[in-house]
Amino acid sequence: MKQSQLFTKTLREAPKDEVSLNAQLLIRAGFIDKLMAGVYTYLPLGLRTLKKIQDIIREEINAVGGQEVLMPALTPKENWVKTGRWDGLDVLFRLEGASDKEYALGASHEEVVTPLVQKFAASHKDLPCAVYQIQNKFRNEPRAKAGLLRGREFSMKDLYSFHKDEKDLDEYYEKVKAAYFKIYQRVGLGDITHLVFSSGGTFSKYSHEFQTITEYGEDTVYICDKCGVGVNKEISAEQTTCPECGGKNLKEAKAIEVGNIFKLKTKYSAAFDYNYIAEDGSKQPVIMGCYGIGPSRVMGTIAEVSHDDGGIIWPESVAPFSVHLISLGKNGDEVAKTADKLYNDLATRGIEVLYDDRDVGAGAKFADADLIGIPKRIVVSKKTIEQGCVEVKSRKEEDGRLVKIEEI
Amino acid sequence: MKQSQLFTKTLREAPKDEVSLNAQLLIRAGFIDKLMAGVYTYLPLGLRTLKKIQDIIREEINAVGGQEVLMPALTPKENWVKTGRWDGLDVLFRLEGASDKEYALGASHEEVVTPLVQKFAASHKDLPCAVYQIQNKFRNEPRAKAGLLRGREFSMKDLYSFHKDEKDLDEYYEKVKAAYFKIYQRVGLGDITHLVFSSGGTFSKYSHEFQTITEYGEDTVYICDKCGVGVNKEISAEQTTCPECGGKNLKEAKAIEVGNIFKLKTKYSAAFDYNYIAEDGSKQPVIMGCYGIGPSRVMGTIAEVSHDDGGIIWPESVAPFSVHLISLGKNGDEVAKTADKLYNDLATRGIEVLYDDRDVGAGAKFADADLIGIPKRIVVSKKTIEQGCVEVKSRKEEDGRLVKIEEI
Repeated sequence: MKQSQLFTKTLREAPKDEVSLNAQLLIRAGFIDKLMAGVYTYLPLGLRTLKKIQDIIREEINAVGGQEVLMPALTPKENWVKTGRWDGLDVLFRLEGASDKEYALGASHEEVVTPLVQKFAASHKDLPCAVYQIQNKFRNEPRAKAGLLRGREFSMKDLYSFHKDEKDLDEYYEKVKAAYFKIYQRVGLGDITHLVFSSGGTFSKYSHEFQTITEYGEDTVYICDKCGVGVNKEISAEQTTCPECGGKNLKEAKAIEVGNIFKLKTKYSAAFDYNYIAEDGSKQPVIMGCYGIGPSRVMGTIAEVSHDDGGIIWPESVAPFSVHLISLGKNGDEVAKTADKLYNDLATRGIEVLYDDRDVGAGAKFADADLIGIPKRIVVSKKTIEQGCVEVKSRKEEDGRLVKIEEI
Repeated sequence: MKQSQLFTKTLREAPKDEVSLNAQLLIRAGFIDKLMAGVYTYLPLGLRTLKKIQDIIREEINAVGGQEVLMPALTPKENWVKTGRWDGLDVLFRLEGASDKEYALGASHEEVVTPLVQKFAASHKDLPCAVYQIQNKFRNEPRAKAGLLRGREFSMKDLYSFHKDEKDLDEYYEKVKAAYFKIYQRVGLGDITHLVFSSGGTFSKYSHEFQTITEYGEDTVYICDKCGVGVNKEISAEQTTCPECGGKNLKEAKAIEVGNIFKLKTKYSAAFDYNYIAEDGSKQPVIMGCYGIGPSRVMGTIAEVSHDDGGIIWPESVAPFSVHLISLGKNGDEVAKTADKLYNDLATRGIEVLYDDRDVGAGAKFADADLIGIPKRIVVSKKTIEQGCVEVKSRKEEDGRLVKIEEI
């Protein structure tokens, strides 16, 4: 894409009302725009990154047998009354009184997916099954000041699994755990993301979170120096050794929760009276699990942990473009012609290029390239083409190197 | 995909509370599930079709320079007050009183996109620009009985264009018109979809709709027998000849509106005081256009116009799969082995196959194939493999023909 045609621009300064680091970086780079507290528009660059994160998640969830559906955001009050969450869930957006019918905006979709799967999977032969969606959730967060980390509207991948017994749930749960680690690896958060034990609520001893270590994190976790598994502060008083390996050295760290998985067991199947017919003809309760990752939260987390003073440093896998091609020529001169040709050549070969063909100075172009954070920068200037070269620089490195144009 | 693993099933009968033809067909075929009036879940087959329609629209809108963004559904009350639509738009879902802030659910996005583009495109050099999204809209329709044709939550592609003057808007408007015809052609509605003049509201004499002719349509239009352009009933009293060619024979027909384009001119830019700095330094009002197509409505329309007694007949371009492979074998026998191999071969070649490997009778399999409506059916049976063949049948045709397995 030609940068001259991009309708957005980078901003020299972050908006004054934006206190979160990820949102400041993403707004300045032209990835998102703040509509109001906790609610953002994804601009062309930001939407490309969001979709890449969503696609990586989609691939890994498909690989563990998840079937993709798309449930509505508008959900009927009666389903939430059944599970006790109409009154019990503080952050639920309720549409009351304004209409002939009362609704909640989906803050989570157990209330929709449970009766949905119940319609189709009535027999033991239909189980297990796993259903997911990538869709926007709505939560009326009292403090929505953390940018993409705590939105009132945000992108979520929510997977729900349905099983005949706990053993089958346990096996599938481990598969999803492994899929989650693959996802974090692929989006560039693998090395700093840990499995963390947290409270399991009424039905299970533990649930599990995936926590990305960063000094700016909202959560406090204790990571075992032996196996790397952690414990959330909320259960650290009763759990003083590593629940995974028994290790005794748990080191405190700040972290951002980038996913969680939960054995719901019969909590929602009981609320909807969802039982299956077993091999012997008896009715048995369906056992459920749920598994969440927020693509928008992952995007915000990457910005928080991967940046320098100049701006964001995107991992290749989720960068809006692979290459930022910068021409330091003027319209029609030899430099611009060389850059045009290179842009067309790269595009023909299927490489995603953002081509800075704008009529602005070199300093502004380099500053914008740093802000936007595309992993590879190629500069075409008078100096480089005199040697038949372009300058290639990684976003992470200080210095570039000259490469012959025909080798690109 | 193996049909035995699909968690949904076809239904012998449409649900009793569903009166619309498209929803009956789509629910019976397992494409959608009704959560409540006007609100549907897209099941795996339905989501595949919806995404294909969205991708076709995306390609054609990108081709006319549209830049994709993603705006929130949650929008601030104050923006709607500015344009007079907080009170003026009947179908607006309002979130009042329940929260520290009041919101509307986006029924359309002029109230968000206008101040958004205003932030970035302040100079004549930044215009024209065109911004779109594919996202769910919310409208509190009093009668939501038309399935996917009139949802309370539904998929919409909304494109907004911003221009220096009316001439530039007029030129772009014609480009989008042409893009819309390409879209209808590609989704299989081209031959029965007409450009129709309708009321332009306060600012323009006319707007334009795209109307697909079908006896079950909600709208009444008058189509010119000379040029194929039509007039909506709402303006037919004052417009008795064809506004395109002057033709005098306008024939009444029922139709479904599958898109509309509108010259907004300064209606929204004035509300947000959005002016640009012209070449001469003066402030000039920005001229806007807006262009809508609902992918979910297109999906419902295809079901309405393309079906027979057996079920839906999808055009190749939007079918959930290209091929429905049906094995009439039993697990492990020669027929099943041949079908398994064919499935793997086709999948390896990148062909999208739904493979009916279920342990049910031939009659049920054929009935399901008709209901689901995949354009090409391949049957592997004892009879066909004895001749080294499979039976290939188009969904549209009565009879199939034998084809050598190696030729598939």
